[in-house]
Amino acid sequence: MAPPEETTAAHAAAEAAAIEENLAAKTTGDQPISTIVIVVAMQTEALPLVAKFELSEDLDRSVFPKGVPWVRYHGTYKGLHINLVWPGKDAVLGVDSVGTVSASLLTYASIQAFKPDLIINAGTAGGFQAKGASIIDVYLASDVAFHDRRIPIPVGKLSTGDSLDMCPQDESSITANDATLKDMEGAAVAYVADLLSVPTILIKAVTDIVDGPKPTAEEFMENVVAVSAALHYAVTEVVDFISGKSLSDL
Amino acid sequence: MAPPEETTAAHAAAEAAAIEENLAAKTTGDQPISTIVIVVAMQTEALPLVAKFELSEDLDRSVFPKGVPWVRYHGTYKGLHINLVWPGKDAVLGVDSVGTVSASLLTYASIQAFKPDLIINAGTAGGFQAKGASIIDVYLASDVAFHDRRIPIPVGKLSTGDSLDMCPQDESSITANDATLKDMEGAAVAYVADLLSVPTILIKAVTDIVDGPKPTAEEFMENVVAVSAALHYAVTEVVDFISGKSLSDL
Repeated sequence: MAPPEETTAAHAAAEAAAIEENLAAKTTGDQPISTIVIVVAMQTEALPLVAKFELSEDLDRSVFPKGVPWVRYHGTYKGLHINLVWPGKDAVLGVDSVGTVSASLLTYASIQAFKPDLIINAGTAGGFQAKGASIIDVYLASDVAFHDRRIPIPVGKLSTGDSLDMCPQDESSITANDATLKDMEGAAVAYVADLLSVPTILIKAVTDIVDGPKPTAEEFMENVVAVSAALHYAVTEVVDFISGKSLSDL
Repeated sequence: MAPPEETTAAHAAAEAAAIEENLAAKTTGDQPISTIVIVVAMQTEALPLVAKFELSEDLDRSVFPKGVPWVRYHGTYKGLHINLVWPGKDAVLGVDSVGTVSASLLTYASIQAFKPDLIINAGTAGGFQAKGASIIDVYLASDVAFHDRRIPIPVGKLSTGDSLDMCPQDESSITANDATLKDMEGAAVAYVADLLSVPTILIKAVTDIVDGPKPTAEEFMENVVAVSAALHYAVTEVVDFISGKSLSDL
């Protein structure tokens, strides 16, 4: 899905020009949103979005430092420059590089490289049935918090930590965060985007019921493909809504 | 401790030239180590090192993106260009930005900016008396692992997670990691440095006994200043040892 080799340089130059133009326009916040970065954690979550937005994989990878496994897909959809990034496979373990460290590094590097107007973090999450969540429900998160770093932080509706399971102290923190959803990246993406003053939208689709009877890992594996498909419809709706709007319209 | 304003530009140019020179020399690994980055998490840990190596604070901060609270001290000590970085105070909470997300971002950004030959992560840690650790003991960590991301990872002697406390599942992971020490940054720094192929030395000094009778937070607060002082002697020994050596000598 990469552009033919002979057009790569011209393509890169056009892209650099678009980034410059976008930066110049961005002083007011009233310009239409031009560039977005969509951060996802897993390949399963990325692929339906790559297909929907007809994105090409950046096989050159020179936009990121040598050695990182991060993958970037990009293209233009309804006037929006879309960069979809995921942290890739861990070179040692061969699994998707999920969790807060990879998500925060990739968000940081993508903001530096693409100067986006907006970050979207789209992904799967656990849901709490006590808060009304069901499998395949999709949420826009209104607020985020971490639950496995027990240092006081503002309460929120999405709670992020680095484990699929939930130990008793994590559960207390999640309850204190009044969370409907539990994921492994959202608060990290939002933290970095906030540090660098880029607005963020978090879209989370429920793969498993945290306070339900089924073991989380089993329920997650059972639902992740179907829920990733549901997630891509929600992301498309959000992107369609954003197209042609400025940040001050949102 | 910043240089007078009129010399800042010349200073920056000299520093850029030093970075270039270092990059050119670095192809073989046989050249003397020229530039090191010391990553610490807390101001209390930073200040004894700033004094010992006679470092100046970089008040300009343009080396990092606008908005981040990261602090850099720099200078030359025994022929080594030393950059000491810590993540600064959280703008919202007013506390040191400890933990893996800030440590990994700062390590990433510092490698990009300074192209160091070597990273040193120096800091305080909890120790396990069952493994022979006592307060103020200083360790060079031989291996690292995370304990609050329950996804299989290689075993190690330093175990890193984002909480000062230890929940039962964390304890199981730490036991599985066969750890003598428990900290909140080491594995994140090592992960990023490894991604970007920069060798890392981890120096950890014990502030509290994890498997002892005292509450961790209390014991930590009681010992952190004295242990930070002990830490700086150990870091100095390591830096003195490195001075004039190449990576292949270590």
